Amino acid sequence: MSQQPVKLTAKGRATRQRIIEGAAAEVRTRGAVATTLDDVCRATATSKSQLFHYFPDGREQLMYAVAEHEADRVLLDQEPYLSDLTSWAAWDAWRDAVLARYREQGTTCPLGVLMTQLTKVTPASREVTTRLLEQWQQRITDGVRAMREQGATAPDLDPARVGAALLAGIQGGVSILLQTGRLTHLEAALDVGISGLRAGA
Amino acid sequence: MSQQPVKLTAKGRATRQRIIEGAAAEVRTRGAVATTLDDVCRATATSKSQLFHYFPDGREQLMYAVAEHEADRVLLDQEPYLSDLTSWAAWDAWRDAVLARYREQGTTCPLGVLMTQLTKVTPASREVTTRLLEQWQQRITDGVRAMREQGATAPDLDPARVGAALLAGIQGGVSILLQTGRLTHLEAALDVGISGLRAGA
Repeated sequence: MSQQPVKLTAKGRATRQRIIEGAAAEVRTRGAVATTLDDVCRATATSKSQLFHYFPDGREQLMYAVAEHEADRVLLDQEPYLSDLTSWAAWDAWRDAVLARYREQGTTCPLGVLMTQLTKVTPASREVTTRLLEQWQQRITDGVRAMREQGATAPDLDPARVGAALLAGIQGGVSILLQTGRLTHLEAALDVGISGLRAGA
Repeated sequence: MSQQPVKLTAKGRATRQRIIEGAAAEVRTRGAVATTLDDVCRATATSKSQLFHYFPDGREQLMYAVAEHEADRVLLDQEPYLSDLTSWAAWDAWRDAVLARYREQGTTCPLGVLMTQLTKVTPASREVTTRLLEQWQQRITDGVRAMREQGATAPDLDPARVGAALLAGIQGGVSILLQTGRLTHLEAALDVGISGLRAGA
């Protein structure tokens, strides 16, 4: 599915973004299934024809854009640390940012809800989470490699494997949080993972 | 919800178990939503009145029993290793058993499907997964403590925290497997987790 089906001016891009953000807020409140295009028009003060100008394929295309927006937020909330894990101070700040994000989010996962409800609409939505996981893991892996190059970890450590393990721990910690309301597992996964990395030097 | 509402003879318990296993097979094939009591009666050659003798509260109670049965299987598939993680050989055998279980299961999670569909029916079903996670983590934690007592890990290691981190890694690895079909993350979580434990000695 093409994300930007029409060439947009700066003003057009801003309007499109405003519609996506308004739709995301509606979806967070009502859920993806219950959010209609009329709801989005009302919430964003947009006409139906304006909405179809930006999303010619309609509801499905808009929901896909909302999913991409929520996925981007997951990564953005971890910045500027996630993209620059080049010192243990940055790793600690990243750990705190991840915990703060999920503590605030609590037992609702906007992207998770959207995904559960969108897969009934389009399998293409699955791409969004797969891409999110890949980008997330890549950044963690880059950080592990940076620390190894500084001699701050075991020299024979496999950055991709450690990155995959850390991402798995975060995903599992978040899924247990969603189920139980407790942050313990996410915290343990980050702390045991990072201290394991540090201990190897 | 009481699990055994009536005192059962050995023969009664066997019949009840046969109904649960038959219902579990139906749910695995059709999904929880589509499985009717008539399906279960047909599949297990049981009459409606017999079924209500064992499950007086009806469908909801039967589905709860099916969820418990699937949760028990998750732990049983990891035995005899999970309950006796007292040597590195046992840890390695456990790791292999976990990977083999999920490799075979692939991208469908019978308990997950059941949970997603049951929470619409009864919040009590959530207890089943919470209890599963607790028992799972307790056994891993017991294993970590056993290794620490042998001096095979760092002496100051916190078994509960390491158990929580390992469980998070497994949960995340399984959820990524369900989404992508790849076992890489589960494998990395187990291998990095166990080698981190070993490296601390």
